[in-house]
Amino acid sequence: MDVEASIKQWLYNHEQEGIELLQKLVQEPSKRGREAKAQAIIMEKCKQLGMDIDCWELEGDSLRQHPQFHCDRSDFSGNPNLAAVLKGSGGGKSILLNGHIDVVPEGNLHDWVEHPFSGIVKDGKMYGRGTTDMKGGTVSLLMAMDAIISLGIQLKGDVIFESVIEEESGGAGTLAAVLRGYRADGAIIPEPTNLKFFPLQQGSMWFRITVKGKSAHGGTRYAGVNAIEQAMVVIDAIRELETKRNEALDHPLYETIPIPIPINLGKISGGDWPSSVPDTVILEGRFGVAPNESIEAAQLSLTECLSELNTVHEWFQIKPVEWEWFGARWLPGQLEENHPLMQVLTDKFISVFNKEPVIEASPWGTDGGYLSVVGKIPVMVFGPGITEMAHDANEHIELRKITEAAHVIALTILEWCGMDDA
Amino acid sequence: MDVEASIKQWLYNHEQEGIELLQKLVQEPSKRGREAKAQAIIMEKCKQLGMDIDCWELEGDSLRQHPQFHCDRSDFSGNPNLAAVLKGSGGGKSILLNGHIDVVPEGNLHDWVEHPFSGIVKDGKMYGRGTTDMKGGTVSLLMAMDAIISLGIQLKGDVIFESVIEEESGGAGTLAAVLRGYRADGAIIPEPTNLKFFPLQQGSMWFRITVKGKSAHGGTRYAGVNAIEQAMVVIDAIRELETKRNEALDHPLYETIPIPIPINLGKISGGDWPSSVPDTVILEGRFGVAPNESIEAAQLSLTECLSELNTVHEWFQIKPVEWEWFGARWLPGQLEENHPLMQVLTDKFISVFNKEPVIEASPWGTDGGYLSVVGKIPVMVFGPGITEMAHDANEHIELRKITEAAHVIALTILEWCGMDDA
Repeated sequence: MDVEASIKQWLYNHEQEGIELLQKLVQEPSKRGREAKAQAIIMEKCKQLGMDIDCWELEGDSLRQHPQFHCDRSDFSGNPNLAAVLKGSGGGKSILLNGHIDVVPEGNLHDWVEHPFSGIVKDGKMYGRGTTDMKGGTVSLLMAMDAIISLGIQLKGDVIFESVIEEESGGAGTLAAVLRGYRADGAIIPEPTNLKFFPLQQGSMWFRITVKGKSAHGGTRYAGVNAIEQAMVVIDAIRELETKRNEALDHPLYETIPIPIPINLGKISGGDWPSSVPDTVILEGRFGVAPNESIEAAQLSLTECLSELNTVHEWFQIKPVEWEWFGARWLPGQLEENHPLMQVLTDKFISVFNKEPVIEASPWGTDGGYLSVVGKIPVMVFGPGITEMAHDANEHIELRKITEAAHVIALTILEWCGMDDA
Repeated sequence: MDVEASIKQWLYNHEQEGIELLQKLVQEPSKRGREAKAQAIIMEKCKQLGMDIDCWELEGDSLRQHPQFHCDRSDFSGNPNLAAVLKGSGGGKSILLNGHIDVVPEGNLHDWVEHPFSGIVKDGKMYGRGTTDMKGGTVSLLMAMDAIISLGIQLKGDVIFESVIEEESGGAGTLAAVLRGYRADGAIIPEPTNLKFFPLQQGSMWFRITVKGKSAHGGTRYAGVNAIEQAMVVIDAIRELETKRNEALDHPLYETIPIPIPINLGKISGGDWPSSVPDTVILEGRFGVAPNESIEAAQLSLTECLSELNTVHEWFQIKPVEWEWFGARWLPGQLEENHPLMQVLTDKFISVFNKEPVIEASPWGTDGGYLSVVGKIPVMVFGPGITEMAHDANEHIELRKITEAAHVIALTILEWCGMDDA
């Protein structure tokens, strides 16, 4: 039996182990600031594989003073980043496999059929926050490496596996790994792409808009200006801006996506008393950046939109809308169509599925921005999770796809890094 | 010098004492749950006046099980109600003087020129949360009683002074006082009326509306339903309902009021992550009830409005809007035009100001609802504060008006309770 067939057989024979590993990972709610226990499970697995492990806490001036550091987390202690290296014999290309361990909050418990951290399996699917985004993808990486190591295959190039924190809050974990020196000739990030290829990575960043009103007693509400109603004017303007920005895009990969670079309104809060007219509403959200757009140009478009409100609407002349960019920022990125990494992945995809991969633009930012912009590493985003389930209630993953992704990735590693037959 | 002239002279001679008392009261931020220290100042004043003092904590089944008890406060301990009685010699009508000690939160600090609890005096005005709503009115009551007591006037009827908690949250303090037995032949509540007479008391109650969306990753926001945008649909419907309800009113006292029974949106909150589509938005507010409208009829109008949304809008058929009435409720009330209390107050107003009082409908609910509906006490709302400044930043009061209100109230007490010349 040839090596590729052995890889396939090994992966399908060990599918259940991958499922059990994923379940353990999902049952550790690794929300921001609580990533340590899930990282310990990953470290244990890497130890079993005999890899060189580097486990470190994100601190130090070189990270915080980096011009691309955009993070509102004050304390990283106790929740480390992890890198594990499988050293090649030399003469091959290196590959970086990057997964994030942090998950977003579970949202409204009532919207979940099962407990959000149950990891329950039903009809070939596992349910729970993080199954799709992206512990399932991380398990694909670990399975691929396990197959190669277990079959005793010696690679020429290095394989660097990373399990990072902070992706959901802007990627400080991956930035820290780049600054620590982890770079390679190519990278794969198995974010939930429905097994599609996402060579275009949308950038994104967080904004906070403060809308002012004028307080008054609710009984004489006409004497005040309700900040909630003013916020509705701002939201309408943002929706128009989103339409305008998306109409201006003309890349063919965007044609099938309803809103290629969305502006998401994620949080609203205002007022402190039912009987008072609220004087402030705060909106927080996520601003999509086109792969070929600069962060500055994207920011300018919001500035223009909100500044115009200030000049057109009478109340906003008295109390101008205020805005800031805070916390997370994912840099946009792009892998060229004819890049060797794209070609190898495509070949291996075809050999696994017997059909061409679907290529789309990513609807979200990923840590790929830091890898490509700061690390100068070509990046492909390709993973087993369900794009639409990320951040949703009842998040789940089709378990078989984890094995299929592992299969494509393992074959890609063999080809990319090269096998040392000696 | 006759008694009325002595009262006037005494009040203007002692104006500064009233100002100092108000300043001390304003400097105690008696927000909900922190009323004790301000109550202690009132108690000290009542002791100086030699009144019979009753200071008690709101507890016990008779209060909590009363059908009109609408309150979300779990713990009343440590923050008492206060009643002080000036016993008459008999044969006169009794009067109840009711003020609330609680104040609403200060809102956004940046909107205040001075610290909200400074009690600073500038140009004949005192600034601070509670100056207008309604510690200034309470000082008018205390000044009126002080004048009568200091001048050695013996009344026939009893004067019952109350300083209650919880008015801003629906009036559990006044309900408790009624249930404790404090009733009278008439009552005055010196809420901020700009020295106008408010014989019609708007009722009001608090509502909480839960608007559901469907969560999704912000990058694929089109796969979700943003609860913030759904909330905007609900807010539009509420605005239409408000217009409809106010157009249906035809009492002449409402003609000059822009929105006689407003529906105020006081709080909004939703979402927990900038990059996620929020699945829930909660709106809280205050629903105005016309003086001649039943609570049930007012509630039905909101029920109809929101139920209609559920049938007309597709998404609301999947996730219906939910609503509840919670916490505060102020019963509506009405003092007849030719009631003796109205007549005495009008006579005394004319003798102080040499002009007819302006009579308007109250833009808010007051504790008068509990006094009239549960206690069967005829109530007039008349006080020195500035209606438009209640609950606003930079709340203030014109100090001279405190004395003027005290003057009208003192003369009314003399006439209503009767003087015992023996």
